[in-house]
Amino acid sequence: MADYGPEVAAEAVKCIQMLAVDAVEAANSGHPGAPMGLADIAFTLWMRQLRYDPTAPDWPNRDRFVLSAGHASMLLYGLLHLSGYDLSLDDIKQFRQWESKTPGHPEVHMTPGVETTTGPLGQGISNAVGMALALKMQAARFNTAEEPLITARVFGIASDGDLMEGVSAEASSLAGHLGLDNLVFFYDDNKITIDGKTDIAFTEDVGARYQAYGWFVQHIDGHDHAAIEAALAAAVAEPARPSLIVARTHIGKGSPNKQDSSKAHGSPLGKDEVAATKANIGWDHPPFFIPERVQALFAARAEDGKKERAAWDQRLAAVKAAGGEVADRWRSMMEGELPQNLLAELVAAAPAKTAATRKQAGAVEQRAAALVPGLVGGSADLAGSNNTTIADGGEVQRNAFSGRNLHFGVREHGMGSIANGMALAGGFIPFTATFLVFSDYMRPAIRLAALSHIQSIYVFTHDSLYLGEDGPTHQPVEHFWALRSIPNLDLVRPADAVECAGAWAHALARKDGPTAFALTRQDLPNLSRPEGFDPALMLRGGYVLSPAEGTPQAVIIATGSEVSVAVEAKALLGDRGKGVSVVSMPCLEAFLRQDEAYRHQVLPPGVKRCSFEIGITLPWRSIVGEDGLTIGHDGFGFSAPAEVIQEKIGHTPAQVAETIGAWL
Amino acid sequence: MADYGPEVAAEAVKCIQMLAVDAVEAANSGHPGAPMGLADIAFTLWMRQLRYDPTAPDWPNRDRFVLSAGHASMLLYGLLHLSGYDLSLDDIKQFRQWESKTPGHPEVHMTPGVETTTGPLGQGISNAVGMALALKMQAARFNTAEEPLITARVFGIASDGDLMEGVSAEASSLAGHLGLDNLVFFYDDNKITIDGKTDIAFTEDVGARYQAYGWFVQHIDGHDHAAIEAALAAAVAEPARPSLIVARTHIGKGSPNKQDSSKAHGSPLGKDEVAATKANIGWDHPPFFIPERVQALFAARAEDGKKERAAWDQRLAAVKAAGGEVADRWRSMMEGELPQNLLAELVAAAPAKTAATRKQAGAVEQRAAALVPGLVGGSADLAGSNNTTIADGGEVQRNAFSGRNLHFGVREHGMGSIANGMALAGGFIPFTATFLVFSDYMRPAIRLAALSHIQSIYVFTHDSLYLGEDGPTHQPVEHFWALRSIPNLDLVRPADAVECAGAWAHALARKDGPTAFALTRQDLPNLSRPEGFDPALMLRGGYVLSPAEGTPQAVIIATGSEVSVAVEAKALLGDRGKGVSVVSMPCLEAFLRQDEAYRHQVLPPGVKRCSFEIGITLPWRSIVGEDGLTIGHDGFGFSAPAEVIQEKIGHTPAQVAETIGAWL
Repeated sequence: MADYGPEVAAEAVKCIQMLAVDAVEAANSGHPGAPMGLADIAFTLWMRQLRYDPTAPDWPNRDRFVLSAGHASMLLYGLLHLSGYDLSLDDIKQFRQWESKTPGHPEVHMTPGVETTTGPLGQGISNAVGMALALKMQAARFNTAEEPLITARVFGIASDGDLMEGVSAEASSLAGHLGLDNLVFFYDDNKITIDGKTDIAFTEDVGARYQAYGWFVQHIDGHDHAAIEAALAAAVAEPARPSLIVARTHIGKGSPNKQDSSKAHGSPLGKDEVAATKANIGWDHPPFFIPERVQALFAARAEDGKKERAAWDQRLAAVKAAGGEVADRWRSMMEGELPQNLLAELVAAAPAKTAATRKQAGAVEQRAAALVPGLVGGSADLAGSNNTTIADGGEVQRNAFSGRNLHFGVREHGMGSIANGMALAGGFIPFTATFLVFSDYMRPAIRLAALSHIQSIYVFTHDSLYLGEDGPTHQPVEHFWALRSIPNLDLVRPADAVECAGAWAHALARKDGPTAFALTRQDLPNLSRPEGFDPALMLRGGYVLSPAEGTPQAVIIATGSEVSVAVEAKALLGDRGKGVSVVSMPCLEAFLRQDEAYRHQVLPPGVKRCSFEIGITLPWRSIVGEDGLTIGHDGFGFSAPAEVIQEKIGHTPAQVAETIGAWL
Repeated sequence: MADYGPEVAAEAVKCIQMLAVDAVEAANSGHPGAPMGLADIAFTLWMRQLRYDPTAPDWPNRDRFVLSAGHASMLLYGLLHLSGYDLSLDDIKQFRQWESKTPGHPEVHMTPGVETTTGPLGQGISNAVGMALALKMQAARFNTAEEPLITARVFGIASDGDLMEGVSAEASSLAGHLGLDNLVFFYDDNKITIDGKTDIAFTEDVGARYQAYGWFVQHIDGHDHAAIEAALAAAVAEPARPSLIVARTHIGKGSPNKQDSSKAHGSPLGKDEVAATKANIGWDHPPFFIPERVQALFAARAEDGKKERAAWDQRLAAVKAAGGEVADRWRSMMEGELPQNLLAELVAAAPAKTAATRKQAGAVEQRAAALVPGLVGGSADLAGSNNTTIADGGEVQRNAFSGRNLHFGVREHGMGSIANGMALAGGFIPFTATFLVFSDYMRPAIRLAALSHIQSIYVFTHDSLYLGEDGPTHQPVEHFWALRSIPNLDLVRPADAVECAGAWAHALARKDGPTAFALTRQDLPNLSRPEGFDPALMLRGGYVLSPAEGTPQAVIIATGSEVSVAVEAKALLGDRGKGVSVVSMPCLEAFLRQDEAYRHQVLPPGVKRCSFEIGITLPWRSIVGEDGLTIGHDGFGFSAPAEVIQEKIGHTPAQVAETIGAWL
């Protein structure tokens, strides 16, 4: 095993610190202070605990390192380079430059060895909770008494900002509840925040708070390697609780004029201070210098990891060769492809009866869960309303991780961020659920899923004013478009049971980003479709559900609960000699990705268009054009029974037919 | 003073419980369990501590009652009716019906006596923190040794859901930091959550957590009136800390088959169970029955409040008659109108130099702060970057509430919710600040400001890819349209210093809802405007900044940082014989509220349109039409210097001129 004395340790720490200082200086942009203050901790963690193989960054049983304080990115890039990941010194020199592998904040899809995208504060530690949870759930599925395949831990570093954010509070409370003893976080207690000292706004007792959550809390000097090592040893040995190590550190450590000051946080030290710092710590080297013995130490450490990984690969191979339940499960979850006939299977599972799409989607989910063993998830305390519980899936609780149903508590934001971590940990496709209006609570996590190409599925129910009496605080109006506006997120709003099958097929097949469902509280009839209807059409995002006889005078483009109303309005218009067709548009984003020929087939050029969706209308004009009609609802909602609301806002079939008739 | 024995107390509690049960039953919708479990606490609070005058719901020195568990709305409506607020028994009978004053969840603008809109969990207690803070800040401004005008306290009730949400964690931590001893909350510890028992997801030690925040924590039986009264007395006597009273209660108390069960939470008890409950508790009355002696007790209690309020009115009148600084301050803050010449004053304060709009807006803010003494606020630890600190405004800290600058810490969601509470408390126009991308973190609070017609100002800086090296995690792309999609929120994206003056004038004049600014990190030139330019045009949301000579071939509609680029592109196009005009559109929402004549003047029908904004483009097509051009950026951003990004995405003046030229 790689070992080292205090001298090389000191030199390695300086090297990590100065790589960060030099890279920030070269970029003339970045955050030097945190890497300088955290190098002792990170180095010790890397050498004494973290199990990694730089040549196999996707090794399933690697320990995860999560830099929740993402602005300290150069700390991580420096370590990854030194460790031998595919991140060259030229990459380091290109810190924060166009198309480099070293963006300002770590992005999981950009850089080998980066486990998650961080920077928006509070997300990293919450992702880490998800990773630790997923590893426990993997262990429950794959480990046997003879062969514990999954033993990986999750380590990380959080800043004061991370711990002020509510999302971390939510996730940390749940981590304590679940007893995630495979999670070990350092709190970088440097007493400095961007606006000054932390005590201008943050004087709570963080350690006591984490104890209240059920964490094992230690306090150390974050520059004392022996103390760091001992605390880490105690943390990994702790048998029942996640660990927080409150480490007193000094931001900008070594800088004569900027240490312990917010001036070290978000700007380059500047040429003079860099020189003064290097003189102060005794670093008489050109920029980006790496001493040979430091390089050698990291190389030796990497060898440890390579050996461990190679041995593990053999164990996995043996498990797979032995066959049986665990081997099958491994293949289907960790390497699994989706069943070829997924859409057909799900369509077959779509209930024939009239019901709310939240119920139809819940029924389809049961079949999806049977076909896709990695599908796991839960709700923010609305499982009964969201209809997301996997029947016979079992419940995930402390010391009981073989289940598939998670209770997230009333913690939407933590839920979204935990789901991101679960997806990144591998093996699972997490779904999460709440009311659509509360998608706002988890929006930062949704954005990060989209940015990081994470497959996460959001089951949002109670998707409109038709949830009724709960009123405007609970009624989404802007949310369809607010979600559609996020790049790389697909919103699917199915109109009936069959489209719920399409929604699940869409989400399960979409591996490079998240999908959100918008589902009704209220019943919707199942739509009649032409004989020989090809369900694959649904995956194109929009399709002609009910064609006009002959050339239509207009196309009604409807989503979700408005589709069946549109079909009824079409009949009423037909009675008056006005022929219109109805297009169901469950996923506008997918439709807009289709080729022009298909789009023109569905929305023929020259034919007037009317959009119909119970939400804000302005963006729909981009689809229907200047001479088009938008029917929707601008402004907040109303507390009243759904059918009263429908009539008051003019959305009954007769009213819609009237409106469209007048427009035509 | 109104007094009562245990018998009438018991009868009053039953009356409150049964009003809730009957109203939910009549509506066939609602939440009976929480009002049943909370009636003892609320009744005791109402009788023993809460100072209120039902005939003067806006009395500035009233105590505030915040029902954070908004689903228990019938608890509040029942109390308001019994107390003599303008809320009749017919209103109660219309619970959850169209246009009633008793919506499913309390809405501050709908019902006299409702202090804030609750239902989205965690918001009420966070609003309450803002109210308590604002009352402290009022006291620091108006109280003298002889005449303590403001002595009001804030009381409230939070559910487990409220305390699981991160927003309440953020606000509670700050309340502890600031030592808000005028804040007293009950935690309705009924052990039941929607999905079952709270211990399926929430086993942290809530009391210990609040102690770690610096709160005074007591534990009581929430049905023991003497214990409730004693805990309240201790809480209001506590001289330095906010109070949490952890009250063990029983949801659905009195219901033989649904007490202590989630079945009591969100559905009517049902006819049989109502009968069984009434028999069980000894309530042999028709629905909506109010015993005479209960009515008399509440009437007597109201008389206490009326007397207190009348005496207070006299004290205020004396203070005002005496004149001097406090009297002036009262008039300008509590009754204040804005200066008539506000816009001109702010335009005069707009710096003439080139600078980022975050800096220009910061300079204008200084003048606004001088003119509007109620303007107070701060940042989520980015004050230096947001440029929001009021020079010489002083800092708000524990025992120092006369300042105007708040340090919210890295707590965007709590900040937004606290600001809502501050605005509702009266006297203040709060502004809050962070990076635009982190508006996502506070979105639920923004929505509630818009829904509740709260004047709250959001200073969002670093508004585009041009923030540069921090990269996609920090670069807004979808946020302009995500914010524009919220009803009753105005987004203002100024193009230069003069438009920053317009932005502040817009926000300060807009009393019935919130306004968000989107400001640049990078420098922007000041625009040249025609001689005699009327600054009031800016308040119309969009205006012709740079007209074409003769009829334009196209109008470029630009916002913020794109306006000056558009002006340059216009000149380049002019060199090629293509005449275009440039419209600056700082506030699309305001522009769309203008009459058609004005809109056609700015965007003449028949003239082609091009939108230009560095963000998602699809919704802009609703403005430019099918034959229009949208220039923007779809997809996430890049970590690189701003000028590199500008060129790579084709947004330099020459590139834009080229693109528009090709389109024309």
